[in-house]
Amino acid sequence: MARVKEILLSHGGGGMATRRLIEEVFFKNFANPILAPLDDSAELPLKERLAFTTDSYVVKPLFFPGGDIGRLAVSGTVNDLWMKGAKPLFLASSFIIEEGIDFDLLEKVVRSMAATAKEAGVEIVCGDTKVVERGGADRLFITTSGVGRIWPGAEVSGAGAKPGDAVICSGTLGDHGMAILSRREGIEIKSSLKSDCAPLTPLLESLLKETTQIHSMRDPTRGGLATALNEIAYSSKVGIFLQEEEIPVREEVRGICDLLGFDPLYVANEGKFILILPSELASRALQALRSQPLGKDAALIGWVAEGPEGVFLKTRIGGTRPLLMLEGEQLPRIC
Amino acid sequence: MARVKEILLSHGGGGMATRRLIEEVFFKNFANPILAPLDDSAELPLKERLAFTTDSYVVKPLFFPGGDIGRLAVSGTVNDLWMKGAKPLFLASSFIIEEGIDFDLLEKVVRSMAATAKEAGVEIVCGDTKVVERGGADRLFITTSGVGRIWPGAEVSGAGAKPGDAVICSGTLGDHGMAILSRREGIEIKSSLKSDCAPLTPLLESLLKETTQIHSMRDPTRGGLATALNEIAYSSKVGIFLQEEEIPVREEVRGICDLLGFDPLYVANEGKFILILPSELASRALQALRSQPLGKDAALIGWVAEGPEGVFLKTRIGGTRPLLMLEGEQLPRIC
Repeated sequence: MARVKEILLSHGGGGMATRRLIEEVFFKNFANPILAPLDDSAELPLKERLAFTTDSYVVKPLFFPGGDIGRLAVSGTVNDLWMKGAKPLFLASSFIIEEGIDFDLLEKVVRSMAATAKEAGVEIVCGDTKVVERGGADRLFITTSGVGRIWPGAEVSGAGAKPGDAVICSGTLGDHGMAILSRREGIEIKSSLKSDCAPLTPLLESLLKETTQIHSMRDPTRGGLATALNEIAYSSKVGIFLQEEEIPVREEVRGICDLLGFDPLYVANEGKFILILPSELASRALQALRSQPLGKDAALIGWVAEGPEGVFLKTRIGGTRPLLMLEGEQLPRIC
Repeated sequence: MARVKEILLSHGGGGMATRRLIEEVFFKNFANPILAPLDDSAELPLKERLAFTTDSYVVKPLFFPGGDIGRLAVSGTVNDLWMKGAKPLFLASSFIIEEGIDFDLLEKVVRSMAATAKEAGVEIVCGDTKVVERGGADRLFITTSGVGRIWPGAEVSGAGAKPGDAVICSGTLGDHGMAILSRREGIEIKSSLKSDCAPLTPLLESLLKETTQIHSMRDPTRGGLATALNEIAYSSKVGIFLQEEEIPVREEVRGICDLLGFDPLYVANEGKFILILPSELASRALQALRSQPLGKDAALIGWVAEGPEGVFLKTRIGGTRPLLMLEGEQLPRIC
């Protein structure tokens, strides 16, 4: 296949194009054993087991039902640390601001970050601010980086899923993506649809106190559940089978998805995670998750098997269809 | 003074406006003892003494004589760690890319980052990529964050300067800012003017092996020498006196500055640092710096005294004038 000559939106969509960009450009040039697992966070070989991660947030609109770019920028990075089994401790935040935005808007975002950091139990300990000329950026971009301490005994990796493992989803899927989309496209649906954007701290603390025998975790953000599980399936060289009727999706989200031709399994989430662990621990893990408000809809949605590698959906009507990696993202773009 | 209603370019200029933005918005809301010193890096209270920092790079043009945004993004963050006396170990890099930029351009930048990371002895261990729609960003922004290990025995802080200390500058000032400016504004001067953009690793290793009794360090980036020293003067509650004729500035830089009405003491540098340490250690420190190519022009440029707080220049003609913090930056904007 001829290599593309310019960067396309699909390179940021979280699907195959993003994967190729990461492998062909970043991974090839930065190659080192710490980067190699391409997990949500890197484990730093220091005296303590620390995890390190970074993410840029470019969401439009900046404020949406259930959250804002500030809440997202803290939650997203906190959650990426948790996905490596690390308790988030410290965040850095860097702002790229378009000249002319309201001072009050910026302060509102910053206050939201501070509140979310408190909720997540992290401190924002360093930062940077750049202002670019009008038209040089789309109002406000935030990049957060985080350092966390890996929970004693935890060995979590995208390559850790094993045949026989249970696949658990911590709650309903698609809320974030559909909330952003309805706000952005001005879809006026009388609905209580809200982003699920939240730090996963209470859920993960509850879970890790119950068990550290976790093989794999991932938060299904860009590209949704299907993309996150495909990454695990290929890194772990396993097949992942999902039972369609067990996957929690709100009626409302399903309705809007049907209306717009989206598949909720590919829609972004910002306060959910996928947990893969030995099946004998599944009921204890579910109990630990359901004991927290954020995890009340947690469900066992599938299992891991020996190859073929990939993700497969057992449908309500009894068939099996592969859930492929998308080339980019479902359109229109969300985050 | 009435509070401004919108974000101005001067809020990103590194001067008083930036300082007020940081204090009134970020520091007020994120307040915690680790952030409080507002040094170039934060010291993390972990089992090892680690430093943590972040910076966004939005330089225009992306390629300039002596460097590019990739070299800058690695050097700048590496140098911010060194300024806390920390040996840089790990970097995270996050890219915000405008749809449509050349794939080859991106790869060229990434290769430059990889080469600079190698030169600095750090590994890029995690990252993120976002693509925004055409017009949503100015081609390419890079945010890097870094983790480093504080050199045993080092206690470096912006608040650490003490009366009697010597002030040393590691080399010529103004090269980066003037190189960017001449390229950006299309000033066609037959010159070999190049950015000094470089990781300070060889200089700092040489220095720290010689002595760890360093009171204060800062790399004079946005706002230049005058701004960096004002920050130290006010944090340390001291006066800093500089001897104008000792401050190293290339003839060529001085010439372009004169032509355009710039003061080289306020122009950005990306491969220099200011060192404040007990005066009895000054000659050993100078020797350690001059033993490295990057430090061959290192010079003792002044001393620290009891108040009045601020920075004061003893001019060639025998007068003394204060070097004030600028409100924003000298115009036109550089980085």
